[in-house]
Order: sequence, then C-alpha cells, then structure tokens
Amino acid sequence: MKGNVIVGQSGGPTAAINSSLAGVYRTAKDRGAKKVYGMLYGIQGLLEERYIDLSEHIKTDLDIELLKRTPAAYLGSCRYKLPEIHENKEVYEKIFEILNRLEIEAFIYIGGNDSMDTIKKLSDYAIVTGQPTRFVGCPKTIDNDLALTDHTPGYGSAAKYIGTSVKEIIRDGFCLEYSKGVVTIVEIMGRNAGWLTGAAALAKGEDCPGPDLIYLPEIPFDLEDFGSRIKELLKKKGSIVVAVSEGIKLSDGRYVCELGAGIDFVDAFGHKQLSGTANYLASYVAGEMGCKTRAIELSTLQRAASHCASRVDILEAYQVGGAAVKAADEGDTGKMIVFERYSDDPYQSGTAVKDVHKIANDERLVPRAWVNEDGTYVTDDFITYVRPLIQGDVAPIMVDGIPRHLFRPF
Amino acid sequence: MKGNVIVGQSGGPTAAINSSLAGVYRTAKDRGAKKVYGMLYGIQGLLEERYIDLSEHIKTDLDIELLKRTPAAYLGSCRYKLPEIHENKEVYEKIFEILNRLEIEAFIYIGGNDSMDTIKKLSDYAIVTGQPTRFVGCPKTIDNDLALTDHTPGYGSAAKYIGTSVKEIIRDGFCLEYSKGVVTIVEIMGRNAGWLTGAAALAKGEDCPGPDLIYLPEIPFDLEDFGSRIKELLKKKGSIVVAVSEGIKLSDGRYVCELGAGIDFVDAFGHKQLSGTANYLASYVAGEMGCKTRAIELSTLQRAASHCASRVDILEAYQVGGAAVKAADEGDTGKMIVFERYSDDPYQSGTAVKDVHKIANDERLVPRAWVNEDGTYVTDDFITYVRPLIQGDVAPIMVDGIPRHLFRPF
Repeated sequence: MKGNVIVGQSGGPTAAINSSLAGVYRTAKDRGAKKVYGMLYGIQGLLEERYIDLSEHIKTDLDIELLKRTPAAYLGSCRYKLPEIHENKEVYEKIFEILNRLEIEAFIYIGGNDSMDTIKKLSDYAIVTGQPTRFVGCPKTIDNDLALTDHTPGYGSAAKYIGTSVKEIIRDGFCLEYSKGVVTIVEIMGRNAGWLTGAAALAKGEDCPGPDLIYLPEIPFDLEDFGSRIKELLKKKGSIVVAVSEGIKLSDGRYVCELGAGIDFVDAFGHKQLSGTANYLASYVAGEMGCKTRAIELSTLQRAASHCASRVDILEAYQVGGAAVKAADEGDTGKMIVFERYSDDPYQSGTAVKDVHKIANDERLVPRAWVNEDGTYVTDDFITYVRPLIQGDVAPIMVDGIPRHLFRPF
Repeated sequence: MKGNVIVGQSGGPTAAINSSLAGVYRTAKDRGAKKVYGMLYGIQGLLEERYIDLSEHIKTDLDIELLKRTPAAYLGSCRYKLPEIHENKEVYEKIFEILNRLEIEAFIYIGGNDSMDTIKKLSDYAIVTGQPTRFVGCPKTIDNDLALTDHTPGYGSAAKYIGTSVKEIIRDGFCLEYSKGVVTIVEIMGRNAGWLTGAAALAKGEDCPGPDLIYLPEIPFDLEDFGSRIKELLKKKGSIVVAVSEGIKLSDGRYVCELGAGIDFVDAFGHKQLSGTANYLASYVAGEMGCKTRAIELSTLQRAASHCASRVDILEAYQVGGAAVKAADEGDTGKMIVFERYSDDPYQSGTAVKDVHKIANDERLVPRAWVNEDGTYVTDDFITYVRPLIQGDVAPIMVDGIPRHLFRPF
C-alpha cells in the first residue's frame, strides 16, 4: 500500500468486532500502510474529526492478543445513518475533505447491515466524484442476519455463550424441582432473525435435554398454543425452560412485548428496541397456570461475553479484517468480505469479496425448513449449521482473577 | 468408617455445590464407607425415600472432574424447613427410621443458613434420643452470609462471574457513548448481604474504571441522592454503570423493588423473593433525566456460571466436603465446617470445625467499614478480602463447543 488506512466500527457491539480491528491493523501494517487511523465512534466521530493513530495504542503483539479478547468496539461505535447523496452533499464533502487530507487509500468499516449502507454510499460518492479512496466493509453482527455471507463474525461467540448459559439455566432449574412447576423464560436478542434464539438448542446434548420450546421471530407466535403446550409440559416435568426471541410477534403483527410493558425506544434507523417479552410471557404463565415463573433476559451479556468466545469466531473475525485490507489494496471498492462454507464437518470455509450493493439493508432470516413444523424448535440442520461456529476457546488473559482487556485511554 | 454415609444438597444452587459433593463422595470412599447415598432433593426427598447409591453414578475419575464443573445441585435441592422437634416428632421418627435402616454413620448436608438449621435439629434429636448417626454441615451459598466462617464456597465463583460480566457490560456501554447518556443498572443477588453486589468492584482495574456506583443492601438507599449523583455523572460521561443489590431498601424499610412491580413470592422460610429493583431504578432515571437506560438482572446466571468458576472456590468446596466427612468420622456431630483465613496475600486458609448452634439462622453482613462514607462503593479492604477467592480457573471440559456436565439420568 502506498497511502494510509482508516478503520471504523459501527452498530451494536460484539465479542469479535475488535478481533476484526486487530486483523485490519496487522494486515495494513504488513502490506506497508504508512499510517493506520481509527475513527472514534465510527463515521459520526470522523465527521467531528475524532480519530487516532492506532500505532500509538497497539504497540506489541500482546496488545494484538488483548484486542482480540476485548469485547465491544475498542474505537467506539455509532448508529449514524448517512443521508442520501442528493439530500446532503455537504456531509460527503466534509468526509472526503478529511479522507483526502489524511491520504486515506483504504476505508474499512466493520459493521452490520446499516454499516454496509455507509460503505455503499461512500463508495458510490467516490466513484461519481472521482475520489481515490477505496471502501470495503467487514461483516459484524451477533444477529447473523447479513445477506450473501454464510455467517457473520460475532455470531459464533454469542451462540456459544447462549448455548452455555441456557444449559446452566436448565441445570439450575432441574435441581429446584422440589417447587414443582417452575417455568423459566429466557429472552434472547435478534429483532427479526432467530439465529441467536435458535442457538439455545446448543444446550441439548448427551448430558442435557435442552430447552423445552424455542420460539423464533420468523414464525408468528400463538399465545394460546404456547399456553397449552406449557400446561402439557407441567404435567410431565417440574422445570420447564423456554427460549424466546425478543422480537416474536403475534399473527396480527404486534410484538409480544407490546402486550406488556411495551416498546420504549426507536433508534435512528427506525428499529424498535424491544424488551419485556420474557417478562410478559412469565406473567402470562403465572396468571394462567398459577405456577412459579422466572424471566431471564440475556441482555447485553450475550454480545459482550468475551470470556466465553468461540475460537473459530475470533479467528474468522481477524481473518475478515485482513481480507478487507487486502481487497482494498488490490483495488476493490464498494465491496464487503463474506464467508463461503465448503463443508460442515470437517468445517471448511473461506472469504470472498461481494458487491456491497447486493447486501445493504437486506436481512437474512432462518430458513423455514430449519424450524420444526409446529414452529417450536430448530431442526438438526440448524444445529449442523451453527455447531462449527462455536468450536474452540480463546482463553482470556487473566490478571488477578479477571479477564484483561485492551484499554483505550481517551 | 464402619457404616454408610448419606449426603444431601439444599437451598439455592451454586457453581461449587457439586464440588463439595465430589469431596464428600471421594473422602467417604477413601475412609472406607461401604455405601455413599445421595438424598434426592435434600431432606424433603429423603422423607419420600428418594435416594440413590452414588457409586452407581460416579464411576470414574473423569466423573469426579465433571461433577466439580457441573453447576446447580446434582442431587436436586429443596427449601424444606424441619418443624421444631416438639411440634412434630413423626417427621424425625421417619427420618431416623430411614437413616437407621440404611446404617448411616454420617449425614452430610451441603447448604446455607437454613440447611444448618436442619443439621442443628437432626443432631439435637439424635443426641436426645441416643441415635448413632452424626450430622455435619458443609457451607454453601453464593450470598456469603454464613456466620463464623471467613467465606463460603460458591461465593468466589459467583464473585468472579459478577466481576467479569460487569466489566464486559462497562466495556459495552463505553463504546456506545455516541448516544450520550446511557445509564445501565445491573441488579445482583443478595437479599440482605452485599457480598455479591460489592464484587462488581472487581471490574475495576488498570484497564477499566469499574462501575460508577455500588449500592449494598446493608446501607439505606436514598432515591433522591441517587438521582442527583446520576445527574452529576451524566454531565461528565456518556455511559454510567451502577451495580445494585436486589435487596436495597429505603430508610423506611420498604424494598426499592416494592416501589415498582413489587414482590411476587415468599418462600417456605418467609424470605421475600425480590426482583425488579434495576427495572424500577432504570424507569426512575429515564423519567427524571430523560436519558436512555438499561436494566440488567444477572439473575440465575450468577449462581450457575460454572464456565466462569474460580479455581480457589471449586477446590475449597471440594475441601470442605472432605473435611465434613472427616469430622463426622472422627466423632463430630452438630458441627459445620468453616474457613479460617491466615493471610490475604499470599492467600492462606484452612478449615475448622464449629458448633452449628452458633451458626444457624445468623446472617453475616458486609462490615460498615468496608463501604465508603457515602454508601456508594466498597472500599479497598473489601477488594483485599474478595480478591483471593476469585483466583484461577477451572477450564470446562468442552464437548463440541459447549461445557460438559455430569448428567443425572433419574
């Protein structure tokens, strides 16, 4: 590379997004980039001229290893949506003034659907106005809902944490069967896509029956049918564990959480922030069946649990970071790195470069065939898909009993 | 030993209670016990003649290792409170008929305050009626509120999980500072004792500022003062993380959670089951300050997270199991094993045998001197106390990406 590289992180945090940052930094350095800048708080921070020289912060190989193990966006994140080019040229002019001043050859943005929208607009603007910077997206989202890629870095670690935690919750519930009839509802992230909720089935194995029911947001939720299934289960066993997506909806389109406390927040992209689904269902079961219930929201923990990361996920996140720099260095722009899977077992996959215009704002959902007919569990095909992505561990670097992270002192 | 041993587990599950069971089993076998029985669902199950021969289930050294890593009570737990002896002799007669039939020399009960009450009553009854069985309690509780012992097995692992998770939550919050002013309230278990909530301070280190405020149940909670502290913090930083005990109370004695959704359950011991403290405070802050808030309940996860257990805790839990059998074998009855600490750094401790009459139903709280004057944080003395208890890891035995547990197929 002859010029400099700038990298940013955007959207919701994951346990793997910093491993992609490490991959970008290392590969940019290896390919001869003079400077590797980091935008603080993504494109929103860049617009306020907030960026750093990463070499001043990532100094040793140990720093690289710590960065891979640090959850959430090291550089800070944002949910800033770029205006359409014809709506507000000033924003674009400002961004490119900064990029040109910093002699940026490659602009790498690590994020999900919304971030790929940013890559698309910036690369379009650069082409139309003849700017030299190339723009490549690095996939990231625990939701695993990006189109065109087999899977998305961040998902594997979240899935591993969900499988592990749900198994521990089931174990906890079993031992409390003395108070016959405890129904535990575990609420899992995933607004429209059930990839994370389905991962609750990973708890199932030779040593664990797994959750009793799993409800994905792709399938309309039938409250009465749910109630009668719980009633039947209560006749047979003392502890029942149900995994539900935060985004399950009734057939009339209302979110289940709207039946309870409701929706409290709509973000800049118009996405409703959901919560309260487990609480509502727990109250419903307690009211209808008079049994003890417990609502557990895995909440922030499922996207930040670096201490339980998947090795495959962390290494693949590192890999896409490097692949994005390589693609930009070789002349690609308006592209995103994707994963292609060649085999489930033994797991084999590789990166490819795809046109970001085909990806942006398109959500990939769990196929209907990967959910059972009743809509109450994922199938073996789902497990075959997710299993390779949770393999292996990345042992935290422990200092005085607690995992050490890479600290950003600014 | 000449006779047999029976062991039971009681009260809330922990990540370490099965390590104590492993210690009881191994030591009883080593000391020549013919049979080691396990009560299913504690004394309540025993009354229904529900017990197993543990040798049929723990067959190999690998099983012992798996048992140490299996969260929640392997044998099942209960919260059954024995009646006073003069109130209901039949219950005692039934228990001792079973114990004598099984030729039980040592009865080991792994549990917290309420379980030590069971040991006390059974040993009193045995002495008064001249029965040969000896009764020894094994301390267990994530709450760390047992009297006379320096600390309690189960606490160290929960503290390690809380410190680790709160640190990950703080990291998550930092990176989202673009949406200036996010207040995250993390609700932690501990009805009356703040040992677990104080462990949130373990997140603090060279690489993390730790939570901004920590509220223990020992100190009356002032809602207005809390509000003005949040207001001040919001002027200085974008992400604020507060750790609160589920049991914080106003100075008039009302639980903070009663101000919101309220108390939904009172157990057999008359303990109020609390939840909703974080939710209430998050709504309060959102209402008063108009900022975004997030309520996170660590919930069941904090007591079941074997995947994040402390090595010191798991080994000490194993140790007290063995010490309980040894004490009973040497003639002790009506006793509980405790820990005595000889040194913080390097950490040195040992077991001792104490009279259970001095322990039962007595709660040990966090000393006032270990909380700062404002009542908003724990002091360095608290950290010095807890730090040795979270040291070291017990790597889960991973099978196909998920921790393996010892399964009880009955």
